[in-house]
Amino acid sequence: MSKNVLNFIQENRTNHLNELIEFLRIPSISALSDHKGDVRKAAEWTVESLKEAGLTSVELMETPGHPVVYGEWSSAKNTHTILIYGHYDVQPVDPVELWDSPPFEPVIHDEKLYARGASDDKGQTFMHIKAVQALLKANGELPFNVKFLIEGEEEIGSPSLDSFVEENKERLAADVLLISDTPMLGKGRPAVCTGLRGMCSLQVDLKGAKGDLHSGLYGGAVQNSVHALVQLLGTLRDENGRIQVKGFYDNIIEPTEEEREVYRELGDYEAELKGELAVQELFGEEGYSAREQTWIRPTLEINGIYGGFQGEGVKTVIPSEAHAKITCRLVPGQDPVEITQLIEKHLDAHTPPGVTLTTTPFDKGMPFLAPTDHPAFKTATDAYEAAYGEPALFTRMGGSIPVVETFDQVLKMPILLMGFGLPSENFHAPNEHFHLENYDKGLETLINFWETLSFDQ
Amino acid sequence: MSKNVLNFIQENRTNHLNELIEFLRIPSISALSDHKGDVRKAAEWTVESLKEAGLTSVELMETPGHPVVYGEWSSAKNTHTILIYGHYDVQPVDPVELWDSPPFEPVIHDEKLYARGASDDKGQTFMHIKAVQALLKANGELPFNVKFLIEGEEEIGSPSLDSFVEENKERLAADVLLISDTPMLGKGRPAVCTGLRGMCSLQVDLKGAKGDLHSGLYGGAVQNSVHALVQLLGTLRDENGRIQVKGFYDNIIEPTEEEREVYRELGDYEAELKGELAVQELFGEEGYSAREQTWIRPTLEINGIYGGFQGEGVKTVIPSEAHAKITCRLVPGQDPVEITQLIEKHLDAHTPPGVTLTTTPFDKGMPFLAPTDHPAFKTATDAYEAAYGEPALFTRMGGSIPVVETFDQVLKMPILLMGFGLPSENFHAPNEHFHLENYDKGLETLINFWETLSFDQ
Repeated sequence: MSKNVLNFIQENRTNHLNELIEFLRIPSISALSDHKGDVRKAAEWTVESLKEAGLTSVELMETPGHPVVYGEWSSAKNTHTILIYGHYDVQPVDPVELWDSPPFEPVIHDEKLYARGASDDKGQTFMHIKAVQALLKANGELPFNVKFLIEGEEEIGSPSLDSFVEENKERLAADVLLISDTPMLGKGRPAVCTGLRGMCSLQVDLKGAKGDLHSGLYGGAVQNSVHALVQLLGTLRDENGRIQVKGFYDNIIEPTEEEREVYRELGDYEAELKGELAVQELFGEEGYSAREQTWIRPTLEINGIYGGFQGEGVKTVIPSEAHAKITCRLVPGQDPVEITQLIEKHLDAHTPPGVTLTTTPFDKGMPFLAPTDHPAFKTATDAYEAAYGEPALFTRMGGSIPVVETFDQVLKMPILLMGFGLPSENFHAPNEHFHLENYDKGLETLINFWETLSFDQ
Repeated sequence: MSKNVLNFIQENRTNHLNELIEFLRIPSISALSDHKGDVRKAAEWTVESLKEAGLTSVELMETPGHPVVYGEWSSAKNTHTILIYGHYDVQPVDPVELWDSPPFEPVIHDEKLYARGASDDKGQTFMHIKAVQALLKANGELPFNVKFLIEGEEEIGSPSLDSFVEENKERLAADVLLISDTPMLGKGRPAVCTGLRGMCSLQVDLKGAKGDLHSGLYGGAVQNSVHALVQLLGTLRDENGRIQVKGFYDNIIEPTEEEREVYRELGDYEAELKGELAVQELFGEEGYSAREQTWIRPTLEINGIYGGFQGEGVKTVIPSEAHAKITCRLVPGQDPVEITQLIEKHLDAHTPPGVTLTTTPFDKGMPFLAPTDHPAFKTATDAYEAAYGEPALFTRMGGSIPVVETFDQVLKMPILLMGFGLPSENFHAPNEHFHLENYDKGLETLINFWETLSFDQ
């Protein structure tokens, strides 16, 4: 980091943290309509913050839900552009009695800043604003153009974002998208998330006789829908946990041996996981570590099952109907539509006699795989290393981040997930906090990134 | 039937039917506390009816629930005794709007008597009283002693009867127990039911991780309780419907070839059953007809299953718990305690890794098999034949009648199930009725039985 930028952030550290505390005092809970005004207040605060940072076109843009804040600075000599996404809304705070201090009265304790949104995602969004501000104030310019897209509905599934992005595709055009909303591996262990799992889902319904039957009068001569369902669903997986749907694994883009080597070097996760989940043993596909099973391998889970009598004791009934819900987590190479069809085909082929099958597909989401050969990725790990003394590792996440999928599909640019939160920082839970070590080193990392990025590497 | 007895019943037919109508007017619904007084009124009516029939010791005996009516006549030269069981309580009448005439305002229409209880079981109990009365009035005596046990809680599962029978074991001692509460095969097709299926039941609970898990973060590395449950329950039955629990079929007392010949001669039941249940195809154990599958073969049914998310749409959760309810219908030779243990052992041996199994046994009931070589059985079929022109066939029922099991276990005497109702007579449903043809021929059958029975055959 160049001297003048370092001076700026060091001299202004206290002021900036006070600004962040001010931002965190706004209870911008997007899920609760009572807080609609607060969410808007946080949007307006963000507008002012972007203006103060030196951005030239800053706008509060209306959506059918909470507003989007947009800002840009486009006077760079190099015409490449960095797009930065973040969100100013936060999760609800229940159960509020479990917080050691009120969620919207930020306190710094033991070099950690406690408040709802401190890490997810006001703190991390704020760092991006301050990094840009530091560069602009110290140098009078940025090495590249910048665009900020800061939304207020991330914690409720970004319902307005898909169409916003679609409608503002040209305005949002850039060369790389930078997001800080994923965790590091741990204290002092930076990570760039390079892959997310996608999803497909469906409802399975079996129907046998026209109504529930007396098990004495009819039992033995007619199919039992629940029994048929357990037999049908039992065919989906073998006893080792491998999915038996034909073609399920066919198009997976296998991670490189290099990637797997990185995952192996992260060390044993199994013991920790067993303790966390309170299970005697783990269960997963053979040949993969627990980390790999959740990061790079697909799943097929029965999320719910129901049919027949669920009350106390017994009822001698042959259930007419049986139901189940299935979701898959998909990895790069798997297409949600195709996988859904393969599952439907499998179910259809394995339905026992005497029942009728209906399948209803639900939500789908594409898996995400970052183009780690893009120069920005190497710049990012170096930027982390300069700040932390450790390069960022390329890791993955087992879950999905719907906005990432939207950006990937619509904006078609490399997406760089540079997180600064720690897994232990209680996102979405009581006593959310943010380690100031990662505020400082993160700011340094971001400035390093801005200063060293070259699109011609 | 001897002339003088015939004269008595013919001369008194109208009076007797009017008496029965009076009996049916009493809304003795044992399930509804509002009708407690009516149930008692029906018990008192029964006391009077037994007295009028000429029984000498008639008593209304209190129980913790509704009273039992007991009566006997013990002056026979032959010291053998016939015990007759019936019940004076009836089922509720909902939905009452579906009745063509009010359930407690009996009407005779087209030689059928319509009223709640007309067939089940006031009508059939009344016939036994009138048969004894006819013999006593015409001959001044009975060929054997008689004891009547008429209860008021059959339609609510006879909660007081077990201990009543146990406490009055000696008073109830007899050589044969006669019950008329099972259906004939059809119009003009009498039947003696010689076997009932028993039952055992259990709850199956699986527990995996300490709570429901996020399928993105953990999916692939940990057992899913619902998936484990479907795989576990899937092992209980093969694809042809044969139960895979080791030893399940081992001790079955196979019916004789003669019995199976009778069942075959009853004709095809499959087409009728498919229509009744509205299914494209039936499903059951190979090598047995639908009738045999429900009468002489055991079952294992999953009566209910539940776990995870049951709402609309999907929820990406890995359920921590999964539950199922199982009941078996058991046939003679199978012991409910033993079968329960075999199932528990099977489940224990097949539980997938990563989950903990708990099984909780519930209700049990012994299967019932009548000693058809006892002379009373031949007497009964002949008695039917003399009245109907058709001998009664020895058939079975797929369900259980708990009182029969109690009598079988405690009183240890041959139990003769001589029914006079028709399967079409809407027991427990709106427009219950009783064919007067079976009232007349049934009375004749019972008197024939009394007159021709010999314990020395």
